Amino acid sequence: MIYMPDSLLEYYLLEDISMGDLTTRSLGLHGKPGRMTFTNRQPTTTSGIKLSERLLNKLGLKVTAALADGMNITEPQVLLCAEGDIAALHQGWKVAQNILEWSCGVAHAASKLVQQARTQNPQVQIACTRKSIPGTRLLATTAILDGGAIIHRAGCAETILLFANHRHCLPQPFDWQQHIAQLRRNAPEKKVIVEADSMSEAELAIKAKPDIIQLDKFSPQQILEALNLAAQQGFRGQLIAAGGIKLSNIQDYAATGVPVLVTSSPYYAKPADIKVTLKPN
Amino acid sequence: MIYMPDSLLEYYLLEDISMGDLTTRSLGLHGKPGRMTFTNRQPTTTSGIKLSERLLNKLGLKVTAALADGMNITEPQVLLCAEGDIAALHQGWKVAQNILEWSCGVAHAASKLVQQARTQNPQVQIACTRKSIPGTRLLATTAILDGGAIIHRAGCAETILLFANHRHCLPQPFDWQQHIAQLRRNAPEKKVIVEADSMSEAELAIKAKPDIIQLDKFSPQQILEALNLAAQQGFRGQLIAAGGIKLSNIQDYAATGVPVLVTSSPYYAKPADIKVTLKPN
Amino acid sequence: MIYMPDSLLEYYLLEDISMGDLTTRSLGLHGKPGRMTFTNRQPTTTSGIKLSERLLNKLGLKVTAALADGMNITEPQVLLCAEGDIAALHQGWKVAQNILEWSCGVAHAASKLVQQARTQNPQVQIACTRKSIPGTRLLATTAILDGGAIIHRAGCAETILLFANHRHCLPQPFDWQQHIAQLRRNAPEKKVIVEADSMSEAELAIKAKPDIIQLDKFSPQQILEALNLAAQQGFRGQLIAAGGIKLSNIQDYAATGVPVLVTSSPYYAKPADIKVTLKPN
Amino acid sequence: MIYMPDSLLEYYLLEDISMGDLTTRSLGLHGKPGRMTFTNRQPTTTSGIKLSERLLNKLGLKVTAALADGMNITEPQVLLCAEGDIAALHQGWKVAQNILEWSCGVAHAASKLVQQARTQNPQVQIACTRKSIPGTRLLATTAILDGGAIIHRAGCAETILLFANHRHCLPQPFDWQQHIAQLRRNAPEKKVIVEADSMSEAELAIKAKPDIIQLDKFSPQQILEALNLAAQQGFRGQLIAAGGIKLSNIQDYAATGVPVLVTSSPYYAKPADIKVTLKPN
Amino acid sequence: MIYMPDSLLEYYLLEDISMGDLTTRSLGLHGKPGRMTFTNRQPTTTSGIKLSERLLNKLGLKVTAALADGMNITEPQVLLCAEGDIAALHQGWKVAQNILEWSCGVAHAASKLVQQARTQNPQVQIACTRKSIPGTRLLATTAILDGGAIIHRAGCAETILLFANHRHCLPQPFDWQQHIAQLRRNAPEKKVIVEADSMSEAELAIKAKPDIIQLDKFSPQQILEALNLAAQQGFRGQLIAAGGIKLSNIQDYAATGVPVLVTSSPYYAKPADIKVTLKPN
Amino acid sequence: MIYMPDSLLEYYLLEDISMGDLTTRSLGLHGKPGRMTFTNRQPTTTSGIKLSERLLNKLGLKVTAALADGMNITEPQVLLCAEGDIAALHQGWKVAQNILEWSCGVAHAASKLVQQARTQNPQVQIACTRKSIPGTRLLATTAILDGGAIIHRAGCAETILLFANHRHCLPQPFDWQQHIAQLRRNAPEKKVIVEADSMSEAELAIKAKPDIIQLDKFSPQQILEALNLAAQQGFRGQLIAAGGIKLSNIQDYAATGVPVLVTSSPYYAKPADIKVTLKPN
Repeated sequence: MIYMPDSLLEYYLLEDISMGDLTTRSLGLHGKPGRMTFTNRQPTTTSGIKLSERLLNKLGLKVTAALADGMNITEPQVLLCAEGDIAALHQGWKVAQNILEWSCGVAHAASKLVQQARTQNPQVQIACTRKSIPGTRLLATTAILDGGAIIHRAGCAETILLFANHRHCLPQPFDWQQHIAQLRRNAPEKKVIVEADSMSEAELAIKAKPDIIQLDKFSPQQILEALNLAAQQGFRGQLIAAGGIKLSNIQDYAATGVPVLVTSSPYYAKPADIKVTLKPN
Repeated sequence: MIYMPDSLLEYYLLEDISMGDLTTRSLGLHGKPGRMTFTNRQPTTTSGIKLSERLLNKLGLKVTAALADGMNITEPQVLLCAEGDIAALHQGWKVAQNILEWSCGVAHAASKLVQQARTQNPQVQIACTRKSIPGTRLLATTAILDGGAIIHRAGCAETILLFANHRHCLPQPFDWQQHIAQLRRNAPEKKVIVEADSMSEAELAIKAKPDIIQLDKFSPQQILEALNLAAQQGFRGQLIAAGGIKLSNIQDYAATGVPVLVTSSPYYAKPADIKVTLKPN
Repeated sequence: MIYMPDSLLEYYLLEDISMGDLTTRSLGLHGKPGRMTFTNRQPTTTSGIKLSERLLNKLGLKVTAALADGMNITEPQVLLCAEGDIAALHQGWKVAQNILEWSCGVAHAASKLVQQARTQNPQVQIACTRKSIPGTRLLATTAILDGGAIIHRAGCAETILLFANHRHCLPQPFDWQQHIAQLRRNAPEKKVIVEADSMSEAELAIKAKPDIIQLDKFSPQQILEALNLAAQQGFRGQLIAAGGIKLSNIQDYAATGVPVLVTSSPYYAKPADIKVTLKPN
Repeated sequence: MIYMPDSLLEYYLLEDISMGDLTTRSLGLHGKPGRMTFTNRQPTTTSGIKLSERLLNKLGLKVTAALADGMNITEPQVLLCAEGDIAALHQGWKVAQNILEWSCGVAHAASKLVQQARTQNPQVQIACTRKSIPGTRLLATTAILDGGAIIHRAGCAETILLFANHRHCLPQPFDWQQHIAQLRRNAPEKKVIVEADSMSEAELAIKAKPDIIQLDKFSPQQILEALNLAAQQGFRGQLIAAGGIKLSNIQDYAATGVPVLVTSSPYYAKPADIKVTLKPN
Repeated sequence: MIYMPDSLLEYYLLEDISMGDLTTRSLGLHGKPGRMTFTNRQPTTTSGIKLSERLLNKLGLKVTAALADGMNITEPQVLLCAEGDIAALHQGWKVAQNILEWSCGVAHAASKLVQQARTQNPQVQIACTRKSIPGTRLLATTAILDGGAIIHRAGCAETILLFANHRHCLPQPFDWQQHIAQLRRNAPEKKVIVEADSMSEAELAIKAKPDIIQLDKFSPQQILEALNLAAQQGFRGQLIAAGGIKLSNIQDYAATGVPVLVTSSPYYAKPADIKVTLKPN
Repeated sequence: MIYMPDSLLEYYLLEDISMGDLTTRSLGLHGKPGRMTFTNRQPTTTSGIKLSERLLNKLGLKVTAALADGMNITEPQVLLCAEGDIAALHQGWKVAQNILEWSCGVAHAASKLVQQARTQNPQVQIACTRKSIPGTRLLATTAILDGGAIIHRAGCAETILLFANHRHCLPQPFDWQQHIAQLRRNAPEKKVIVEADSMSEAELAIKAKPDIIQLDKFSPQQILEALNLAAQQGFRGQLIAAGGIKLSNIQDYAATGVPVLVTSSPYYAKPADIKVTLKPN
């Protein structure tokens, strides 16, 4: 869904094989056809398969079977099978494995969050932040989309999100109404989203009537309290939750009924365990 | 210690601020001087500070204080302080925070492994694999070096490491002597390292006399057994351990006395918790 | 406001001087200090000055005077003055002139649109599209911001904008309600914007209650009609206008009272006329 | 005719779809085959078609029909037709449309200049300058070649062109003979071209006998006068005209009989109007 | 064997044809099919063929015949034959010829070194240094591998090589034992290689017992002397030779029996003489 | 004189130190100040010094002394001296040495050609071809300019050069007049240069009256014969010589009196011998 430039694929390759594979070369392993398969050992969510296919193609290999990205699979399955010169197979092996393991790991973590949360609120969205590991934005975003999550904000020009650090730099740091009015005027095609770091900030925010209030590091209980407050004030916007949300607590957050749960947790997921076999034909 | 190209710094910046910071811009926040500080909340190991400094410089900011990379710090300290136009501060904020949090997290995980392991074997080295998250090789390697670990192999042309997948492609998959002789001849300036996935492979490997045998996914007990076997056979090379080594078990592995413990675990460490304050002067 | 990577600056340089300046070189012109000034001949809006400064610095030149970007100037003024080796001055001359002339031209066109429109509606925003000339997105966006316009959408992942081409691909192309509901659910932090290409589409759109309806190629009269219709229907969102809006008609569009006028016209503005003098000291 | 690197194609793509197409994604539009056609609404000159084909291929689309670049077409025709997954079609739509509209616009402007000029002088060449919009040199040059124009100078190392700014930096700014002798000696495989900004400079230039004198901002009448002067002096080189030449006056310039008319005007041409239809199969 | 990124191929193309081929274009040569063949005039070793094929493919050409890289050929043979539009053939001609001539030249020089050396010591390896011509590391390394040589060290993080410049920076510059112990501890998976620049340094080195001693600029006679010394001292490591080794003296060096001869000489080899024919079909 | 982009500097660095300097790192060499000097051992022509300075700056080093590029020096002199952290000095050492040795070698070879040739014809120009080693065009061109040579043609769009391969693709391969007329018409700002591979081709060329005839692989005697023929025919253009010209025969070629001698020989020059000392302060 997201275009991965060839230059990025080549960056992945050159991270690992910029001078080839010395062991393979020293063994004289080349010129014979072989086959390499990638198989998950545990339930996972597929991601990085299409990218791995393109990457293996760059090494002159032919992909003979590949699952689609974005599938939840519970049993071990061949995710991808490639054929070609055994020297090229050895060069592609670990790069592809690494991409698959990491991507599937992130996608699966996102997928589990989505599934767990929707047991409580079938409409809830899991939105992943821009706090991805440096250099991985495209790959990470692709993976969380494959897992059924959405993008919170891809970068800091994409949405309006008023932080305390912004307010502290303004002449009237506590005049939320004025900030929101200014944002609405200057970014008329965007929702105005403001972050509240405490219940008292939430109160101020509710009165100022932004489109969305992002409650940062609120417990589920505090969120319910804020929702209550918003209802009392006739607030027509939405409250969403961010900060510290992860698999172990997401059901509680989802049960509050907020429409969006913002999290970075899938980026730090354990990589999937993917077995590689590589054999001559 | 490792040169980070400007193009990579710019890639980090453009991941996040390719169209600037919309909120800041919509608020008209620019033209006034401000100050931003990054402070760890928990004990950590510094990493990514020099890189963040260069990155903030690219935005026209001046770094007025910065710790060195590679320090273990136990109390909250200002890691870095930058000054300049508040619009530029807002643009650099999250990119720098993200680099610092991730780098310090990885460095600290590596450092803890080193410290724990050396309680048992003061000479042991923690060597981190090439299984870094795709796109992060330079940053991850810098971080593990900052944490006191070393590089296992930066890529697959750097060292000789004979895997089962190599052997399966050779005419005589079980003739370890011949494989090792060939590797020694064709890579005479390298140590010949072979991986053993089981005790019976370890036996074969010991008889074949490589420079190093990497025992993959052996328990500490199995490693002791293999060491014993090696001693009996008069093996003059070294046994090292890889696979599944992490903070919770590294003391046991170190206690075996092997000189090198190979691990990927720091790459998936929890990021450090770093507080950012950003204020007008 | 928008970070321009060094690689882009170098691309601009290498477009023009990839083998130096043959005439200068053949004349043996180097080694003596000189000075180069850029002065507008006509009223303009400054843009590209900071970028030109960085670019001239790359050639070893020192910028001794420079106006800020984003200023409306009515009289000829020195926009930028650089000093250094005359060979370097000759190399930077046309690249900088070209950037300044084009950027100021675009900024000035944007600025005039803003000024004209605000004579009718002081709150109106001029939002420039993503229809910039291929390869110029960063430079063009910087220029329109310098001229006081805003970004309509920087790319097609930034906002939701439902086009007829989207609807034609859906199972129920005319069920606007359903499309909008789906967009609202799947992009909960975004305003849902839909394009209407005719009055009948506007009617359907109004009934479906998106956040914003973008009226494409409507005359000011038709816009008033649509506004009327929306008021009758109690539509709480906004109508904005796009398509064919330019300096000669923008007052009429602004007079309709819509909050946003979307246009691509500044990208094709006549470049500013900037005089360059280059002399030895 | 000019090689466009893949990296440039990817730059065009990423300007617009670096995070995909949010609307399409939010509507769940993918996995079904569709077709997209690009059709000119007005007479134009084809350009950018081959490039668009390569670009759409990068998105996994198949181009099933495409006109050649460099054709003058008077009636609406399908310039290009692509098929494939509707999600990919939506991602390629605007990028390709934008390239086609701009390229065809520039090519058509160049073509009209050539046609108009040749009504007066069938041998005349229209040479386009290096004053292209920053970042567009390759695309713009391809377009003017498609329109039948030629390159004046692709960069400042390609030809010798002596400007007043060069002369002002020389010890004897008015000794044109000496400058020309030096240029001839140091660039023996190049024609020596000098610019004259006034009739008195033209006189000096004619006496100094360069290969070509470029008359800058001369009216057609002044050009005739200069030609007369050159004939009187037995000047064996050529006079060419530059500065302010555009469609409305090119016939007058061509009628002077000079062999080359230098212009930048096509770069600022109005883009072609190209209709895109995008439908599921 | 070594992955050459597309970006490097494009760099080669753009070095030569960034604005196409003016002569071909001015002659109107395009649109007709042609064929181009590359044939060696002298015995050579093939290299750069696969790369040239990819490069010609980028220009839209089809390679209809190509030898494998790494072959020693004694008679003139068609190395590569490409077909396609004659304009594209002209654009690819010199770039491909240049790559082939240089690569084959380097490969052949390496191959001759290997052959000559092995007349004296059939097991000897020729290892080429990192002293490749700036910007050519990947191409040069590919060529020497095609010639049967190996990589000495691809960069300065690949192997341990203790130079005098390192020792001079240490507190105890002459305590080789300590240096070697430290290197062994900190780079446990590497052989410790030290350079000796004189016989007295060789003595110190032998006593310090590194894995390998690289004798720099020793004559064959001095090498024999050092080998003798090493044998007397019961040195279990290896001596290898570097510095000044070239085709005219390699047999003498090989006759000493050292297992590795380190040289940079192939990088400066005379390019192969390759004839190109280019004809319309 | 020629702009070297930072990306190229970084490419040079990363060719050699992409993971740092392992030996230095393993020895714990960092944090102390040191000094590194580069001194030529033989007469040479300086080149690559400015570039090396920028490159060392990127590593955080300060250049405290540096000669200008383009000087002929006969005695050993310090070309460049850098100071800073000893770890950085070790990282920059070989990259800078390699650039300096190669660049000075090429510049010196060019300089010697110029000097030798001018003993016979003080006005003659040595023009270097585009047959530079793949990937080195910018560096090689800079070096030959530093040596006092000029660029023959930087790429195949820079000048018109009619080869036999062009003629073979034309309908009337032997109608030189027509080819030249077409080139003159379509490239009116360029000299028309044609290559003659034999005396009979030279005759045809002379009759066809191009601006320049490039005599390929003619002996000096044959050149004199061709000059004679040209004089008889009243040919007003120039004859220039190319093919096989090198230091050992350039005086004979220069003595023919042709104004330009075209050669590729400096690109394959022996690198200069430059001594590096690196010490702690």
